[in-house]
Amino acid sequence: MNALHNTWYVAAIANEVATEGMFHRRILDTSILFYRLADGTAVALHDRCPHRFAPLHLGKRVGDEVQCAYHALRFNADGQCTHSPHGDGTIPPRACVRRFPLVERYGFLWIWMGDAQRADPALIPDYPLLANPVPTAIGRGYMHMAANYELIVDNVMDLSHVDHVHGPLLNTAGKLSPQKPPVTAEGNTVLVRWEWQQHPPMGLFAPLLPDPEGAAEQFVQVQWTAPSNMFLTVGAVQGSKDYEQGLISWDYHLLTPESDTSTHYFFGSLRNFMVESEEFNQMKLKNMIDTFMAEDEPLIAAVQAEMGGAEFWSLKPALLSSDPAPVKARRRLQQLIDDEHAGQSGAALARSAAA
Amino acid sequence: MNALHNTWYVAAIANEVATEGMFHRRILDTSILFYRLADGTAVALHDRCPHRFAPLHLGKRVGDEVQCAYHALRFNADGQCTHSPHGDGTIPPRACVRRFPLVERYGFLWIWMGDAQRADPALIPDYPLLANPVPTAIGRGYMHMAANYELIVDNVMDLSHVDHVHGPLLNTAGKLSPQKPPVTAEGNTVLVRWEWQQHPPMGLFAPLLPDPEGAAEQFVQVQWTAPSNMFLTVGAVQGSKDYEQGLISWDYHLLTPESDTSTHYFFGSLRNFMVESEEFNQMKLKNMIDTFMAEDEPLIAAVQAEMGGAEFWSLKPALLSSDPAPVKARRRLQQLIDDEHAGQSGAALARSAAA
Amino acid sequence: MNALHNTWYVAAIANEVATEGMFHRRILDTSILFYRLADGTAVALHDRCPHRFAPLHLGKRVGDEVQCAYHALRFNADGQCTHSPHGDGTIPPRACVRRFPLVERYGFLWIWMGDAQRADPALIPDYPLLANPVPTAIGRGYMHMAANYELIVDNVMDLSHVDHVHGPLLNTAGKLSPQKPPVTAEGNTVLVRWEWQQHPPMGLFAPLLPDPEGAAEQFVQVQWTAPSNMFLTVGAVQGSKDYEQGLISWDYHLLTPESDTSTHYFFGSLRNFMVESEEFNQMKLKNMIDTFMAEDEPLIAAVQAEMGGAEFWSLKPALLSSDPAPVKARRRLQQLIDDEHAGQSGAALARSAAA
Repeated sequence: MNALHNTWYVAAIANEVATEGMFHRRILDTSILFYRLADGTAVALHDRCPHRFAPLHLGKRVGDEVQCAYHALRFNADGQCTHSPHGDGTIPPRACVRRFPLVERYGFLWIWMGDAQRADPALIPDYPLLANPVPTAIGRGYMHMAANYELIVDNVMDLSHVDHVHGPLLNTAGKLSPQKPPVTAEGNTVLVRWEWQQHPPMGLFAPLLPDPEGAAEQFVQVQWTAPSNMFLTVGAVQGSKDYEQGLISWDYHLLTPESDTSTHYFFGSLRNFMVESEEFNQMKLKNMIDTFMAEDEPLIAAVQAEMGGAEFWSLKPALLSSDPAPVKARRRLQQLIDDEHAGQSGAALARSAAA
Repeated sequence: MNALHNTWYVAAIANEVATEGMFHRRILDTSILFYRLADGTAVALHDRCPHRFAPLHLGKRVGDEVQCAYHALRFNADGQCTHSPHGDGTIPPRACVRRFPLVERYGFLWIWMGDAQRADPALIPDYPLLANPVPTAIGRGYMHMAANYELIVDNVMDLSHVDHVHGPLLNTAGKLSPQKPPVTAEGNTVLVRWEWQQHPPMGLFAPLLPDPEGAAEQFVQVQWTAPSNMFLTVGAVQGSKDYEQGLISWDYHLLTPESDTSTHYFFGSLRNFMVESEEFNQMKLKNMIDTFMAEDEPLIAAVQAEMGGAEFWSLKPALLSSDPAPVKARRRLQQLIDDEHAGQSGAALARSAAA
Repeated sequence: MNALHNTWYVAAIANEVATEGMFHRRILDTSILFYRLADGTAVALHDRCPHRFAPLHLGKRVGDEVQCAYHALRFNADGQCTHSPHGDGTIPPRACVRRFPLVERYGFLWIWMGDAQRADPALIPDYPLLANPVPTAIGRGYMHMAANYELIVDNVMDLSHVDHVHGPLLNTAGKLSPQKPPVTAEGNTVLVRWEWQQHPPMGLFAPLLPDPEGAAEQFVQVQWTAPSNMFLTVGAVQGSKDYEQGLISWDYHLLTPESDTSTHYFFGSLRNFMVESEEFNQMKLKNMIDTFMAEDEPLIAAVQAEMGGAEFWSLKPALLSSDPAPVKARRRLQQLIDDEHAGQSGAALARSAAA
């Protein structure tokens, strides 16, 4: 599939992988097994026994190891076979499972699907707000989306759709579309920002502002980081344009391709208001997920069906004033993917020249 | 898919496209949006926004225009973008939707999927009986068939199957199969005709004939017009062979490919008896549709499954005495399709030579 | 699909094809019609009318012949068209259906899907125990498996999985895996045998042995015969190693490919104990089928899904001490398939050279 491999993707919310048992999820068309060692370290292995290819998650845990359901080969967290009940117990050289680098950070498990030697945890996006959040002011969520991840990046990087698609909670009163929002592309990031005055304010903020019926200064900023992580800052303030004094919601939209046509969509949602209310915290996350599943997902899935598998640019899309941001993100990502393929070809050429 | 594009197909029964709202249907593997202008004119557009490819039918009507659900681009009946809420409202050149020629005639909407410049309404089949029918003596129906349209043409052009497949209502008492019915091919039409004596008459006519238990002279004639429109005349008379004095049913079977494996099957059903009875009118149409769905459709769908995607002639069919009509229709259609492809190749060659 | 054609496969349990009516099943991606002549002879024809490709099983029986539902062509057991109600009744030369050699033996119907001239019944595996079993000591069963037949051969030829997959009824107490069982390959057969002491004995035998809680000498032997027939002998005895004096179960696992991803799995199950009990007979067969469907089938189907259509060896399986038997069977079968293809190519070359 058209996706970057040498990068970190969110594989799971940290608590999806429990202390006991096993968890599995398909990422970049590859089946992955997740579990935790006794010391709490989360581990990711190829979910396929190297003997007869049974999914390992059908087997059982034996301490820090996993045992295949079919012929009972046992593997440790490095994917090495540590025990075979077969014959004299000799471990055949091929009896090893690929281990994928996995890092627990920000309450998520981040996986590296490419060359493990290049899996530097410093390459995980720097999201300091996620580092030590007030527990009652952060929600983490997961949605399975029946759509290619790049169509979802398009959706989030062009928030002018909020004017037209979303109901009162996220309503932007048609204020985004008329703008030609400034876009900054730098390295593997693209930043886009809208500012506007809205009257009354967006439903998310209105009840908590001094004058719920009055005018508010609002903004939203989206920072895309390759390949498909987006960090939104959304704010509203009344009586000034000093956004720092107003209400702010920080929302992370972290996308991981499952296949060409489906995506794991992870959320992290924070705020600087009602920070002590766990009830509000849960409501906010639930509202966000319900909104996306009801309003965005059907539209994006319909777009994918209508495209019928055609490559995006081959359909010659018309571009609008909010398109520079998603287009820059698409082009930067494609460059990274093409470079990765060229690098692999180059490495293969070097290997064959050396041989 | 293997189908003619420069031709008229029935896209819908006229009243499927209401004054309000939108209707959509897939034709020749292309999604089509239908709606009516305030003056009643029916319009067909590609059901795909040129910006991000959302199906337009998910949006809303704004007077004589349609507005996309995703980013609110608005298009008129010519497919031109008339309003963009984005930036300064500039309409990008690519923001236009393909409009398909659509003609309302005979209570149906006829669409032209090929080169619009060649869409001459005079090329719609000449069906004068459909022009001004007695309202209580015409029924129009629609069936979705899980079969390639050419298999359905085979079915209707070789009515010898009625001897074996159909129950009392359409029973032909084994009288068609023994015939080698005369076939006339002329231009884009093929005509086949059976005549026979039956005792008692076909169930459709028997109760309305002077002697429901007696012998009747019967006939059926099918006129195929490329690509897949068939006009049947079915009659029964007693005491003479003057069919004009007897009961006659006129049935239009108008087929429109949805995909390689599915077909929109439109019916128009008229008669010269019980013409004032709306009750009989509805019963006759219902009986016809029920019969086809119960007796023809499962068989044709089973044929398609058994063919497993193979090309018809590659399976070396045995041919019987009633096969000249369907075979001539198949061959004429293939010639038209091949000519169309050759014309396109020719035009492409001319363009590249000129460039 | 990757399968041998010039060989006998079990097509059905004999009583699946009744005296009246018709039976159909897909074998090697080909639809087959089965029925019995008045003299009881079972017949296999291609389940496709040569006229318009309707499945013949949708039609009806007329004595020893079958009549197509669509246009009433009638075919005899040789696949010759014997009656056409069309025109003057002339039978077109192409109006013949392929008949497949079919032999009733051992309570099964064996079909030959390849060159009929080479269909020598002597090539049916020699299974003397199936020839004249005590009626209350034989059960025949059928399962549809959502897995490629070679994955099922792997399962049965490497019974070390029984140590890990199966519950008390077939439990082998971990005694098979440590062995490096002797394997004998000869012509188109591969034989593998395990012997061990178990305490208490396997659940199938324990209640019927002198000391249900004591130690027993046990063995299991599997004989694979190309392409995918396996004959298991399983035994337990106490107080000696004279297996002939003990309890023995004989089990035939006869596999027939339906498609690349599905298999018809036929069982024949016999024994030398409780031979007069029809109740025990039925229970034993039911237990076997329930066990396979609950414990083997989900695992094998999961293996197939995980393999994702990849060729087995391309996935570089690790091999264990019990793998020589399934690997020898796989390699012998592939040799036979390759030879068959080479023979066809050779024959084609000879034909074209002669032309």
